[in-house]
Amino acid sequence: MTSSLLANVRPGGGDPVDVVIADGVITAVSPAGTAADQDQRIDGRGLLALPGFVNAHAHVDKSWWGQPWVSYGGRPTTQGRIAHERAERDKYGIPSVAGATAVLREFLRHGTTATRTHVDVDLGVGLRGIANVRAAAAALDGAIEVEIVAFPQDGVLRRPGVLELLDQAAAEGATSIGGLDPASIDRDPVGQLDALFEIAVRRGAGIDIHLHDGGDLGAFQYELIIERTREAGLARKVNVSHGFALGELAPARQAELVEQLGAAGISWTTVAPVRSAPLPWREMRAAGVAVGLGTDGIRDLWSPYGDGDLLQVARGFARLHGLRTDEELAYAVELATTAGAPFVHREAHALVPGARADIVLIDAENVQDALVRAPRRELVVAGGQVVVDDGELLV
Amino acid sequence: MTSSLLANVRPGGGDPVDVVIADGVITAVSPAGTAADQDQRIDGRGLLALPGFVNAHAHVDKSWWGQPWVSYGGRPTTQGRIAHERAERDKYGIPSVAGATAVLREFLRHGTTATRTHVDVDLGVGLRGIANVRAAAAALDGAIEVEIVAFPQDGVLRRPGVLELLDQAAAEGATSIGGLDPASIDRDPVGQLDALFEIAVRRGAGIDIHLHDGGDLGAFQYELIIERTREAGLARKVNVSHGFALGELAPARQAELVEQLGAAGISWTTVAPVRSAPLPWREMRAAGVAVGLGTDGIRDLWSPYGDGDLLQVARGFARLHGLRTDEELAYAVELATTAGAPFVHREAHALVPGARADIVLIDAENVQDALVRAPRRELVVAGGQVVVDDGELLV
Repeated sequence: MTSSLLANVRPGGGDPVDVVIADGVITAVSPAGTAADQDQRIDGRGLLALPGFVNAHAHVDKSWWGQPWVSYGGRPTTQGRIAHERAERDKYGIPSVAGATAVLREFLRHGTTATRTHVDVDLGVGLRGIANVRAAAAALDGAIEVEIVAFPQDGVLRRPGVLELLDQAAAEGATSIGGLDPASIDRDPVGQLDALFEIAVRRGAGIDIHLHDGGDLGAFQYELIIERTREAGLARKVNVSHGFALGELAPARQAELVEQLGAAGISWTTVAPVRSAPLPWREMRAAGVAVGLGTDGIRDLWSPYGDGDLLQVARGFARLHGLRTDEELAYAVELATTAGAPFVHREAHALVPGARADIVLIDAENVQDALVRAPRRELVVAGGQVVVDDGELLV
Repeated sequence: MTSSLLANVRPGGGDPVDVVIADGVITAVSPAGTAADQDQRIDGRGLLALPGFVNAHAHVDKSWWGQPWVSYGGRPTTQGRIAHERAERDKYGIPSVAGATAVLREFLRHGTTATRTHVDVDLGVGLRGIANVRAAAAALDGAIEVEIVAFPQDGVLRRPGVLELLDQAAAEGATSIGGLDPASIDRDPVGQLDALFEIAVRRGAGIDIHLHDGGDLGAFQYELIIERTREAGLARKVNVSHGFALGELAPARQAELVEQLGAAGISWTTVAPVRSAPLPWREMRAAGVAVGLGTDGIRDLWSPYGDGDLLQVARGFARLHGLRTDEELAYAVELATTAGAPFVHREAHALVPGARADIVLIDAENVQDALVRAPRRELVVAGGQVVVDDGELLV
């Protein structure tokens, strides 16, 4: 691979610098105009530079992105959506390599250079969705790093055979196995969680659980997850996705759970849905609970919304939580960038020497301006390669 | 003025048509390829065509759009924001003709071709803000139609002299006079409302009241407004802005108020804030309550958010209300376009002969696709004039 000089960009809106990239990694950052020429020169035009966005909760296997418009149907409940998706997906060729590729390309267009994606594993598709997503990532030459959660969207215990599929997925390299509302879907919270933790420990995998259940029922399942994470020694390997209940609890109960989540090393991902209860993000930060942002599924049989723009999700998070000061707005951008590191197993994710060269250039005054306007991505470097130039996708 | 042929566009995503425009008005719509040549030809490239957006609730006088980033301050309450704005606005030269022009240009860039704007009237700026907004609209050659509400942001009765300013504004042509939380700001709901209705009746003006007060206190003020609207015979001249209380009430009380609002001919504008209670929009539609969408202030001393894109507000409305079916998504686009007519005193606002030629072209499959992605506006025609081409503002 050739070396590149990304000249004259403003990291976080600060003073202009030159960034030297070799073999896909940032090797030097110095004041603008001071770096030596490299094989390739990219003019950064003084634009705002951010680390590539990290989408910590996606479903890249189940979108109809790129196909003609699909009208939404199904009952508007979690169970209704699951059933609707299983009944209709074949009609749209879901899952497919082409579909996953289309979604990953949209992610890149919007500056996302790494993602953790849940991939449906069920009695219908088996592990085919995972193979598709791997093929799609490979087709994009690794421009976007993809970490896979084998996700039992249709339930675990209620569908005999699914546990074996999760076990196989973990054996074949899925970083995590997923879970889904152990109480309301499987009707057996202890049973589902015990089974998931057994696989995780045996295979050395992580766990990432979708928890839609609200209020006290959700809180009870947090406790079960916390207990098992501690007993199994799985700190920093367990994540709660959505977890709507936390925002809904009374302050004292909420504080107790936040502290326990932090102590157990359990992380958290949210897609900041517009009607959800705000999270106690200040308390979570103080307790060391890692928080990641995700797009959730985009344009799928669950919902027609979403275009894969994580900066717009960060803005949604900011508005949902009433963020207004400069420091608060910067925090929302941090969630979409540097704070995403643990969700894709990176030690560091920033514009510093040694980091993978994932860089997004935006025509904005500062990070706050970028957040509230979410303008188009002028240029995106992914693993050292220019994948978006002048807003146009090159891959 | 010359005549134009806007060739090959798809109104609402339907079959392609040609649109003939003369003297700023649509004179004919016919199947694509059938219209005669005109002085000017605009290639519509088969793009989706929508009527220009109508921003039914804006504050174009108080933005710092176009200036360097201004950090947000002030206590996060209505009273705190009012005080913060009055203390800080001089520092940023607010209000000014340049500021109002910058905002109106952003509206045009996003395809908004008519707006109702509240303009601060208080003891500090008097009627200067209104003069500025009129000058800004004139500087843009009427491309965007601007209807003015003289808005007592700092209170009415609690600031002796403001009533006289509102009276003068109405005498000088403001279409409506505003009000603001008669209970929580003026501490005298009956007093403020009686005074506003007296001016409105005497001057033949409308009334547009900001009502942030929630729950029962808000509901009580609706009743006062409904009673006075009926007594004064002001059907279709009174509007409630925000009116957060309505979404918060128990269903029976909510239904009662919706019916009374419809019967009294009172309309409604919302900016669909992410944390507000959803409106009973189906019931409001059934009761004939006209609903308009607005951006609220953008990038001002109240909040750093907003860029004047009403299609994004429509998407926010759709998400807040959980709209998913094609019909529901189309309704949200309708709110941003045709349903805006009464808020800017138009008989009709649609892509039909006789209507002002306000047309937005978007590269989208259909109105649902346009709503959920809110892509850039490729071309905007305002009053027959091309004001945006290839996404670039020409005025």
